[in-house]
Amino acid sequence: MRDVAIIGASQTKFGELWDVSFRQLITEAGLGAIDDSNVEGADLDAMYVGNMTAGLFIQQEHIAALIADHTGLNPIPCARIEAACASGSLALRQGIMAVASGYHDIVISAGVEKMTDVVDATPAIATASDQEWEAQQGATFPSLYAMIAKRHMYEHGTTREQLAKFSVINHKNAAKNPKAQFPFEITVDQVLNSSIVADPLTLLDCSPVTDGAAAIILCPAEDAKKYTDTPIYVKASTQASDTITLHDRKDITTIGSTKVAAKKAYEMANLTTKDIDTVEVHDCFSINGILAIEDLGFVEKGQGGIAVEEGITENGGEIPVNPSGGLKARGHPLGATGIAQAAEIVWQLRGDAGKRQVEGAEIGMTHNIGGTGGTAAVHILSR
Amino acid sequence: MRDVAIIGASQTKFGELWDVSFRQLITEAGLGAIDDSNVEGADLDAMYVGNMTAGLFIQQEHIAALIADHTGLNPIPCARIEAACASGSLALRQGIMAVASGYHDIVISAGVEKMTDVVDATPAIATASDQEWEAQQGATFPSLYAMIAKRHMYEHGTTREQLAKFSVINHKNAAKNPKAQFPFEITVDQVLNSSIVADPLTLLDCSPVTDGAAAIILCPAEDAKKYTDTPIYVKASTQASDTITLHDRKDITTIGSTKVAAKKAYEMANLTTKDIDTVEVHDCFSINGILAIEDLGFVEKGQGGIAVEEGITENGGEIPVNPSGGLKARGHPLGATGIAQAAEIVWQLRGDAGKRQVEGAEIGMTHNIGGTGGTAAVHILSR
Repeated sequence: MRDVAIIGASQTKFGELWDVSFRQLITEAGLGAIDDSNVEGADLDAMYVGNMTAGLFIQQEHIAALIADHTGLNPIPCARIEAACASGSLALRQGIMAVASGYHDIVISAGVEKMTDVVDATPAIATASDQEWEAQQGATFPSLYAMIAKRHMYEHGTTREQLAKFSVINHKNAAKNPKAQFPFEITVDQVLNSSIVADPLTLLDCSPVTDGAAAIILCPAEDAKKYTDTPIYVKASTQASDTITLHDRKDITTIGSTKVAAKKAYEMANLTTKDIDTVEVHDCFSINGILAIEDLGFVEKGQGGIAVEEGITENGGEIPVNPSGGLKARGHPLGATGIAQAAEIVWQLRGDAGKRQVEGAEIGMTHNIGGTGGTAAVHILSR
Repeated sequence: MRDVAIIGASQTKFGELWDVSFRQLITEAGLGAIDDSNVEGADLDAMYVGNMTAGLFIQQEHIAALIADHTGLNPIPCARIEAACASGSLALRQGIMAVASGYHDIVISAGVEKMTDVVDATPAIATASDQEWEAQQGATFPSLYAMIAKRHMYEHGTTREQLAKFSVINHKNAAKNPKAQFPFEITVDQVLNSSIVADPLTLLDCSPVTDGAAAIILCPAEDAKKYTDTPIYVKASTQASDTITLHDRKDITTIGSTKVAAKKAYEMANLTTKDIDTVEVHDCFSINGILAIEDLGFVEKGQGGIAVEEGITENGGEIPVNPSGGLKARGHPLGATGIAQAAEIVWQLRGDAGKRQVEGAEIGMTHNIGGTGGTAAVHILSR
């Protein structure tokens, strides 16, 4: 197995980008990563694209071929990878395997979602849940995560304010991220008093509908210094699944796939939670950010709310979480999120994260899930 | 890079299976492959599923997680791979890379499509073309391939009867395949006199709308004999892209992606066309079967029609094409097709193909494309 390095990273502005098309988004992200990595487009010998549902958002499947054509990269081998909101991390993981296997040398793994070309994104997003047992019964993702939040509050005493604080910290970080969808701060009171979406979750507990794209360029670790003075090395790339439905789980306050993927990642990297300097977690709803820091092992089960309240997840705290602003405030273009998380960690480890830099970050992690955790992927990257 | 072998293969009956659900189809195929390979479900350590558009056909994305849950395979890492009608071959290819890289040992690569749960499959299928430049202008796939056929007839003198003969041979083979959608023979006259779909293509030049699934189990070649006396070895797994749109090509009678993928495959396997004993090609329309045998190098450009007329592609001929019945007569459940092709070659090389056995087949090939060739994948397998 060849070791793999990241030599380029890029992200478009995230937001409601009504004047930018799907093709423009992914092209901008791809060109950005090419530029950042000092390779030429012609050097790329495979492409993976994470995308959840261009079929439902813009009536376009076969998007990898579309992108190769639109960007002039034919005859590059290219494939779309889909696992709902974890599509981006799985595109990264396939790219890593393509390099590790020796099948390909320089690979671009990207992610893109254009979500604002439909009147209501909810039916498309709901296809990440079990259509027969959840979506058709009216269970949207806010409602599913609201049930998780209620149970977490009941079992572990997590408070409404602790949930709100997760969003507040995300926004504080996003305020320093010019590519974030919501680069401004909010208060706990604002979260508590925003519209209720699904009790106990309010509007400001929920990640937004977002257009955006991101891209990463990979190569064999042994070649990385040819392209950059600051390669970032892939120490672990793992993935696991859990039931797609909530009702089949013994405990809905634990995401089993996250736990399995994290355990494998620490083993693969030969590291522990103590070694991780910063982590990008999948906070599609505030409660899920709290589950993530528990299931990744940064705090004990049930202690996530208190940890957030005490500020240990702030930039400068014990384990800075979502320095980018997270899904809540950087934005959540489904298939692009996993790649954007990896891009953020790359910038943090290079020391290129500007005003949101986590001081001295040398090892970082990404955590990306699909649905309510039917899929989870974890990556550990290091300087 | 580790060498990879196939130790199990399975295919459901293909057809308009109105009493069988998406979940049932993929479960049947998966269990069949597990049974065929002498592994247990718990031995599988990764899953790839080729599927074009469950989002549009059954309002379900995140299908890999759905399948892992429904089949009790959690916490297996699982991903859906999509490249329109080439999704199956790309799922096979990702599985091969997962084993080759050392990331995973025993991998199931499957494909599934449930196409008959919608009133009209055309809008979903059209998402494999360029939405802005083709589909929204009314160009359906029959019309795109009809243009290719007309041009091939004009440039190379291919006749209407030669196109028809491609379908006739497919049906002759399918008549011996109990899992085929149309296991019966047809005549050239029947093809010529069936309803015109897009001139010059008639109904019997066109592959059908099909429900079906297929699965393959992979392991490191060095371990294969633990599971089976007749492992089939992966000699090449290659892929390329061409413009997704027809209008951007210099020559619409050549599928550039097929040519590039085939050239790489012969190089990777260190073989030539002369070494291939049988091939499953992507004949979504009769003309595409003719393009395939040309672009794969079995006959000169322009000579495909004559070759078919002369019978060299028949079982027993110089290069038996589509012993299964092909997309036309075995059926074409989009994301399952590439895996079903590989399953057919596995059975042929094992000598397990029953009445449709290609005598003495030792090396076989699959050729699977997406759209009008925006994607092409080629696999070479050997005893």
